[in-house]
Amino acid sequence: MASNSFGTLFRITTWGESHGKAIGVVIDGCPAGIEIDNFSISEELNSRAPGKSVYTSPRIEPDQPEILSGVFEGKTTGAPISILIYNKNADSTKYAPIKDLLRPGHANYTFLEKYGIFDYRGGGRASARETACRVAAGAIAKKFLKHYNIDVLAYIKQIGEIDAIIAPSDTPLLRSQISNSPINCPDPKATQLISALIEKTKSEGDSVGGLVEFFIPSLPVGLGDPVYEKIEAKLASAMLSIPASKGFEIGSGLKSVAMFGSSHNDAFICKNGEVRTETNHAGGTLGGITTGMPVIGRVAFKPASSIKLPQKTLTLNKEEKTFQLPEGSKHDPCVAIRAVPVVEAMVALVLADSILLNRSSKL
Amino acid sequence: MASNSFGTLFRITTWGESHGKAIGVVIDGCPAGIEIDNFSISEELNSRAPGKSVYTSPRIEPDQPEILSGVFEGKTTGAPISILIYNKNADSTKYAPIKDLLRPGHANYTFLEKYGIFDYRGGGRASARETACRVAAGAIAKKFLKHYNIDVLAYIKQIGEIDAIIAPSDTPLLRSQISNSPINCPDPKATQLISALIEKTKSEGDSVGGLVEFFIPSLPVGLGDPVYEKIEAKLASAMLSIPASKGFEIGSGLKSVAMFGSSHNDAFICKNGEVRTETNHAGGTLGGITTGMPVIGRVAFKPASSIKLPQKTLTLNKEEKTFQLPEGSKHDPCVAIRAVPVVEAMVALVLADSILLNRSSKL
Amino acid sequence: MASNSFGTLFRITTWGESHGKAIGVVIDGCPAGIEIDNFSISEELNSRAPGKSVYTSPRIEPDQPEILSGVFEGKTTGAPISILIYNKNADSTKYAPIKDLLRPGHANYTFLEKYGIFDYRGGGRASARETACRVAAGAIAKKFLKHYNIDVLAYIKQIGEIDAIIAPSDTPLLRSQISNSPINCPDPKATQLISALIEKTKSEGDSVGGLVEFFIPSLPVGLGDPVYEKIEAKLASAMLSIPASKGFEIGSGLKSVAMFGSSHNDAFICKNGEVRTETNHAGGTLGGITTGMPVIGRVAFKPASSIKLPQKTLTLNKEEKTFQLPEGSKHDPCVAIRAVPVVEAMVALVLADSILLNRSSKL
Amino acid sequence: MASNSFGTLFRITTWGESHGKAIGVVIDGCPAGIEIDNFSISEELNSRAPGKSVYTSPRIEPDQPEILSGVFEGKTTGAPISILIYNKNADSTKYAPIKDLLRPGHANYTFLEKYGIFDYRGGGRASARETACRVAAGAIAKKFLKHYNIDVLAYIKQIGEIDAIIAPSDTPLLRSQISNSPINCPDPKATQLISALIEKTKSEGDSVGGLVEFFIPSLPVGLGDPVYEKIEAKLASAMLSIPASKGFEIGSGLKSVAMFGSSHNDAFICKNGEVRTETNHAGGTLGGITTGMPVIGRVAFKPASSIKLPQKTLTLNKEEKTFQLPEGSKHDPCVAIRAVPVVEAMVALVLADSILLNRSSKL
Repeated sequence: MASNSFGTLFRITTWGESHGKAIGVVIDGCPAGIEIDNFSISEELNSRAPGKSVYTSPRIEPDQPEILSGVFEGKTTGAPISILIYNKNADSTKYAPIKDLLRPGHANYTFLEKYGIFDYRGGGRASARETACRVAAGAIAKKFLKHYNIDVLAYIKQIGEIDAIIAPSDTPLLRSQISNSPINCPDPKATQLISALIEKTKSEGDSVGGLVEFFIPSLPVGLGDPVYEKIEAKLASAMLSIPASKGFEIGSGLKSVAMFGSSHNDAFICKNGEVRTETNHAGGTLGGITTGMPVIGRVAFKPASSIKLPQKTLTLNKEEKTFQLPEGSKHDPCVAIRAVPVVEAMVALVLADSILLNRSSKL
Repeated sequence: MASNSFGTLFRITTWGESHGKAIGVVIDGCPAGIEIDNFSISEELNSRAPGKSVYTSPRIEPDQPEILSGVFEGKTTGAPISILIYNKNADSTKYAPIKDLLRPGHANYTFLEKYGIFDYRGGGRASARETACRVAAGAIAKKFLKHYNIDVLAYIKQIGEIDAIIAPSDTPLLRSQISNSPINCPDPKATQLISALIEKTKSEGDSVGGLVEFFIPSLPVGLGDPVYEKIEAKLASAMLSIPASKGFEIGSGLKSVAMFGSSHNDAFICKNGEVRTETNHAGGTLGGITTGMPVIGRVAFKPASSIKLPQKTLTLNKEEKTFQLPEGSKHDPCVAIRAVPVVEAMVALVLADSILLNRSSKL
Repeated sequence: MASNSFGTLFRITTWGESHGKAIGVVIDGCPAGIEIDNFSISEELNSRAPGKSVYTSPRIEPDQPEILSGVFEGKTTGAPISILIYNKNADSTKYAPIKDLLRPGHANYTFLEKYGIFDYRGGGRASARETACRVAAGAIAKKFLKHYNIDVLAYIKQIGEIDAIIAPSDTPLLRSQISNSPINCPDPKATQLISALIEKTKSEGDSVGGLVEFFIPSLPVGLGDPVYEKIEAKLASAMLSIPASKGFEIGSGLKSVAMFGSSHNDAFICKNGEVRTETNHAGGTLGGITTGMPVIGRVAFKPASSIKLPQKTLTLNKEEKTFQLPEGSKHDPCVAIRAVPVVEAMVALVLADSILLNRSSKL
Repeated sequence: MASNSFGTLFRITTWGESHGKAIGVVIDGCPAGIEIDNFSISEELNSRAPGKSVYTSPRIEPDQPEILSGVFEGKTTGAPISILIYNKNADSTKYAPIKDLLRPGHANYTFLEKYGIFDYRGGGRASARETACRVAAGAIAKKFLKHYNIDVLAYIKQIGEIDAIIAPSDTPLLRSQISNSPINCPDPKATQLISALIEKTKSEGDSVGGLVEFFIPSLPVGLGDPVYEKIEAKLASAMLSIPASKGFEIGSGLKSVAMFGSSHNDAFICKNGEVRTETNHAGGTLGGITTGMPVIGRVAFKPASSIKLPQKTLTLNKEEKTFQLPEGSKHDPCVAIRAVPVVEAMVALVLADSILLNRSSKL
């Protein structure tokens, strides 16, 4: 099954394993005339990548994406854009001792059963390494969205029990707050508490879950399609395709369960001559189509499966064994932090596709 | 944009408006040789449909689905299966007074902006009426799943603040408990409390949200595909495509945010010679592929937008106006209850498609 | 496999067997705002349908297509358009004697092998009856194309050895010539000769092949997409999906094999300020994208498989047997004639889809 | 529009321009467990590539494809297979003089109109260079087909007026005859005549068209899907997507136009206990589904557009000008010859996809 593609008209296909020679992405259907370059992609890739802070797993060298096609004299041509990123520092030998073990919380068991074969080095296609390709493609989608004055923001909303207090109203301020936080969280106080929690978690060899919120301040009315291609259905699919994600909410989300219609319904009002709603429990979508109000939602990430503590498991022959992460393995105490740019990228890809699809709605 | 289809190999296309002549579904890609008949589809449609209980909106006559193609001598032939359901009791005249108003929480504003035209009678394609087609198609998907001994269950987990206590372990018992509950909830005590809440909500002209849980006791290992077609991504997309849904969780879901890896990771164990996990925080999926453990997840539904209370809104010309539901309009105090069979149907459709797709994984 | 759909954005799904209750089509992705009605569809269906002339197989009553959804107050709404056509005069009893025989030139053997089941009445999904749905959908595509001043014409170019002489330059004349011909051929002399040939063929219980030409006088530059979605690739796929078709040509087609580049290349010239080519061997497409010159091509149809003469065949148990068409069976001496409106419809569907897709090429 | 992909389950995406850094292909959906290596792909790429004979355009160095993902310990893993081929000898400076001219028979005009931008060096995505990626992907499809004992053959059937006499019955002989012919034609006499014709054409600075035949000696019954995904519709689409192709035939093809049903219908017979047909006018398909008889068809290629003779054209500003191919440009006197392996590759890709899709037909 060809499952490594995402999108209908603005469509990406990613490839590559965490411990192979390279990873990459082909972006097909990007309209012609958009200015892009290697630099802006690598900036997107590296700005908030792991290694930025001590709270995420370290990487030595930044990734250097290379655009191999689809761009001529600095602009997209309508041809597929191929981006290649070579894998560095991929020492596979350390995986030898665990090659015959089922890894708790990991995909090696399911891949092995499904395909009858598994690349035991790293996580293969299930590795978070694949998400670098999403971020690279997302950088191009964002360039396209700029032409529509659409900005996508994502940030840490909660880690463990620590909930950040965020009023996502003023974009430039919000963006600077996120930049100033080593954990991509606009609330300075929460940043402090979360940082301490992550340090503690790391020192204990454990990991902790997190909640990422995305926020799109301004969008045209009409994006998304009825019934099976609702904008929230596409966002949900995009988010649950990110490794370690366990849940998705749009607008009031899970909280809507305990609400009454009289308080949930957003009253229509007229503001500066524009149709708006007084509240935004809907999260910017009605009937699966954007209302012009900000689109807001959240993605839940489980604690990373790779922890330093010993775990109960089985060998491939179903014998009981203790699983211990190999010395020198990456240990990421909070995968939600480095998921932030991935969430942004996936939102951008959904929106770019939706804008193209929406061009077909009228005569 | 062709957005009225769902699925890749086992694919449905639905059509029809709530106040048009008929609604229907075409199921394409259903393997040949499955026994089906009109009766089993109508049973599925009507058993837990609105009208079953006083707690949901009343309908007078049950729907009579008619299979028009794809079945010969009681068995599917591999040809597309077309099912037609005529609309009855669709009195559109009552909508005339509100035809120039934006309806709070409804899709008439977004459809109008997107298409420049709106069928003001009922909700058109955004109406929950469309979900009858999903249930009809789901009935066929379930017949297919029977050949793999796969059963899909869904039920009310929470309404308002009332959380049901459910240990989804014993399927026949669970199913009988659900059947005995007028609100599709296996917990008798919660059923009582929720029933009272809904009656109160209804009498106040209001509505209330709800949480539906789905549970698939037994599944082969290997369903779902890596990266963008993870089983949870497809389920998320399916669930967020249901009208009024605002969130989706798989396994530990939103709760995973506050968990640590040491307690979240499910230890692999051997049980009756089979690979199992001690806990099931993953919800039956690792790397987007089923593990053989039960798949479990939840869908959040907002309180229905149609309430009897007056609401602030605008006319199409952006003048302020009070919105009042027309006399005789359907008023559904808790849309989550009648979403239960829709959730089941969508899960069944995702699984049927995944089984066919999985046939391509190996030589 | 979901193989009953055609198109990407302007997408049709057809269903129904020749001897089932009904056949139908769902058109999804048709833009909102197009005027359509039952009458214009039935006109398209019946004007050049079999029965129009003595030279094709007789049908007693004209088809009455019914639009069940997607149209409100005479205009498309962007919702899927469902069209239903009930089957009349479908006497299935006459097929009983041949239900255990492989039918030469027919699909019952391959369907049986593929699906393990076959609806022995008529041709099921392989019947030309299915093409009525294409014509109905094509009628809507044509309405859409009108907004772009795009007209699609098809006609008989050759039957047996008789080649019509046609200079497809003046559309209104061409259309009237086609209308005046009982065999959809604009050349009056060829019409006469062909008519005689068909009468002779019919009286002998035999059938004869034919070549249908399509001609699109005026098209915008830029339709079609590079590499795998070339306009000629989509047309080829559309044409070879029509029952009984055996070949497809664009522009110079098969004749290009014997040509030299110096005479095949079409010189660019400027005519009334527009870029044109002096000749049109390309058939209106370069690199898979329309040039603005007329698109012209041809489709070869084999002689119909249903003939009145006895034929050698096998039973399902591989015993030798003589195949004899049941008394009262349809016998169509030249299937190419009634393929003419089907070719037109399929061309219209390809163009409608291409216009929508082309909206994504630029910023 | 994402038009650089081909196939549904066995799906390829190609990228890269003839004068960019590299070209490549991602194969997604290839089942796990197939043995492949760089060598067998490069062998396929180079064995019959241009440069093999004096009759096609010269290339100095053979291509060196590199597999970057999807293969572990010599076997496919089910992950996407990325193959990269660097462009060598791509001197773009020579294109400067013609950068403002419409090229007769080429796609620069249509690309420019469609995208508003054109990479004037070489043919960009419209270049035959792209087909190297198809051959590389086809090499993998062939490995998969080997597991089903399916062999694909293609060869020159006609060049100019010279028609080869071929009885495609004995595969090993046929393959050796093709190998021994510098122009991929199994008929030694035709090879001689065609070689002379091509030499003459080349010396005159001209080009000539050609007809490629493909032949699949043995196939399972049941490949291909009814209605819009008929095996011949997919083959037609595949063939018309190859640069310079102008027509496609299956079985009796264009000749069927002049045939009668009594001679066209293939009588069913029993041979060695298997259902066969006495003749094979159908070309191995009935109702779009393979019959088990050899599949045979033909593709017409126009004479290459790049000729050394001066041609009439326009500048981008619509001024008349003479077009002259730049010194040192590739001049390929007969593009059909190097299309032979491309036809083989595309047939293999269609078959691989059809085999996977066919796994869904039954329970």
